[in-house]
Amino acid sequence: MKEPGLTCPVPHEPGGTVTLAHGSGGRLMHRLIRDIFLAAFPDPALREAHDGAILDPSQDRLAFTTDSFVIRPIFFPGGDIGSLAVHGTANDLAMCGAQPLYLSCGCILEEGLSLEALATVARSMAAAAAEIGLRIVTGDTKVVERGKGDGIYLNTAGVGRVIAAQPIRPDRVRPGDAVIVSGDVGAHGAAVLSVREGLKFETELKSDACHLWPQVRALLESEADVHCLRDLTRGGLATALNEIAQTAGLCVRADESSIPVRPAVAGACEMFGLDPLYMACEGRFAAFVPQHDCERALAALQDAGAAPVVIGEVLAEPRGEVRLTTRIGVERALDMLSGEQLPRIC
Amino acid sequence: MKEPGLTCPVPHEPGGTVTLAHGSGGRLMHRLIRDIFLAAFPDPALREAHDGAILDPSQDRLAFTTDSFVIRPIFFPGGDIGSLAVHGTANDLAMCGAQPLYLSCGCILEEGLSLEALATVARSMAAAAAEIGLRIVTGDTKVVERGKGDGIYLNTAGVGRVIAAQPIRPDRVRPGDAVIVSGDVGAHGAAVLSVREGLKFETELKSDACHLWPQVRALLESEADVHCLRDLTRGGLATALNEIAQTAGLCVRADESSIPVRPAVAGACEMFGLDPLYMACEGRFAAFVPQHDCERALAALQDAGAAPVVIGEVLAEPRGEVRLTTRIGVERALDMLSGEQLPRIC
Repeated sequence: MKEPGLTCPVPHEPGGTVTLAHGSGGRLMHRLIRDIFLAAFPDPALREAHDGAILDPSQDRLAFTTDSFVIRPIFFPGGDIGSLAVHGTANDLAMCGAQPLYLSCGCILEEGLSLEALATVARSMAAAAAEIGLRIVTGDTKVVERGKGDGIYLNTAGVGRVIAAQPIRPDRVRPGDAVIVSGDVGAHGAAVLSVREGLKFETELKSDACHLWPQVRALLESEADVHCLRDLTRGGLATALNEIAQTAGLCVRADESSIPVRPAVAGACEMFGLDPLYMACEGRFAAFVPQHDCERALAALQDAGAAPVVIGEVLAEPRGEVRLTTRIGVERALDMLSGEQLPRIC
Repeated sequence: MKEPGLTCPVPHEPGGTVTLAHGSGGRLMHRLIRDIFLAAFPDPALREAHDGAILDPSQDRLAFTTDSFVIRPIFFPGGDIGSLAVHGTANDLAMCGAQPLYLSCGCILEEGLSLEALATVARSMAAAAAEIGLRIVTGDTKVVERGKGDGIYLNTAGVGRVIAAQPIRPDRVRPGDAVIVSGDVGAHGAAVLSVREGLKFETELKSDACHLWPQVRALLESEADVHCLRDLTRGGLATALNEIAQTAGLCVRADESSIPVRPAVAGACEMFGLDPLYMACEGRFAAFVPQHDCERALAALQDAGAAPVVIGEVLAEPRGEVRLTTRIGVERALDMLSGEQLPRIC
């Protein structure tokens, strides 16, 4: 019996690299698209070799979002830039209360990138998309000279069908809402940091990157009145809470001791003087729900495989602020940072 | 009376540059988005500060497409990377017979890019979108270190409503179809070349970049049975004809003498030993229509401001080839190139 990985036709010569001509619109680019992208993405809409994809989602409201990915390095424990680009954009749709349906894929490749790495990334995108039946339906490839990029940058845009009966957005957050976090925070940032710095920990650090749609769907099906959802990506939990507080014009109060951080993540953060509350996650979100729906929401998330906890509540004042009760019981402002602790984390 | 340009608030400190922190998810990124992108893009969907945009195009089939733009330099005669990114993606939707409706904007910025340049690009995107009522509804910004990018790379994805009654795609091309080109070819590539090389010509070289939707709409409203449309971007007319011939499994026969090339474009090409038939256009397309609808199609395009000409026809054989009758009456194959004559033209 062959191993599954060996049954595929070899898509390209071993050891090949991306050249400028691969981004040219000529024969080499067509071959690259055929051998790497069409080989990885099976959607018939892509095979039509036309300029765009015709969607036919037999209707209702659609959500549309985009994200570029410049993470360094492109392979990290628990994923790579390809799976991340799919999870990231699909999760943004989920945060709109929308089922992710269609994805585009734009690549900016640096001359010299190994084709093997590119093929791995493309397969990883395809696998991540298949997990939730998401279709990658249109794409584009550009190549830039050596020294004008960094291996591979990806952009994904996504279209989804809005399932939520009520709008899910910051201006629906109300004083009294419970703030639920779907699981432990900071693992994505810590995992990328560990591979950048060549660190080994006793407990392995692995990115939390995953699809949030199954958890969001469960939440919506529970009929909890979800006011807002926000994934905890760049800038982590602290930044997400600040964004919501500012847009809603309300105060988010959180208890530090209730915020789950795994020991390996806490250890890595301590070693580098970083705060896990600002560390990016790629598979965690905050949900704002009225108190009376809180138990229902927690149960639904748990059934969908999350490890949700209530970390705080929404208050009317002080407007636009996040107040954190620290482990020693002191209340302080949890501000937005000027910059990111770790650049190029997604 | 103030000049319109002077009534806007100054969006940022003069002479500022992009820093890594602008791509961080923190306060500086929020300020950048507010001062540059929200200032330039007025769509209320963007102001909701949510992860994605809810579309409500009250239905039918939708088209979805994406394109990344890495053109060098980012400013060129007749446009810049911003207008190009809007025209390019909107034109891909038009080529699907779809009215461009919604656009996403993903930026990958290099540390050190001037904020003035970025603001100019953003305004240019807004102006190009407004021309045809296209809404930029969602976006994302990343920053990479100096030497890991080249000023600015853009990705736009677009969603449009399909207006065409019949599908418009390569497999509907038939032997006997007339091949119409919507105007003179190669000006975009020649204009970019001229600024790269610091050339001055007696007649100014200017990119042909523009929206094709008004011309396509006129064509569809003429009720000509349009079989296929293809814009003549990377790789130019020759590559577009090859793509159609190969996908349709038919032969495209073209007359070199009927293909319009402006003297300045021909001159620039001659100086650099380049073939105008492979030079990128960003505001030209080829239309494949049955002979009996050809006059109707030409009239509609002319009324919409194009300068259409019939440059050839579709034959059954030799399959997958483009045959060119040269100016001296010799027939030869017009192949696809391995690479691009001019890299980073879009």
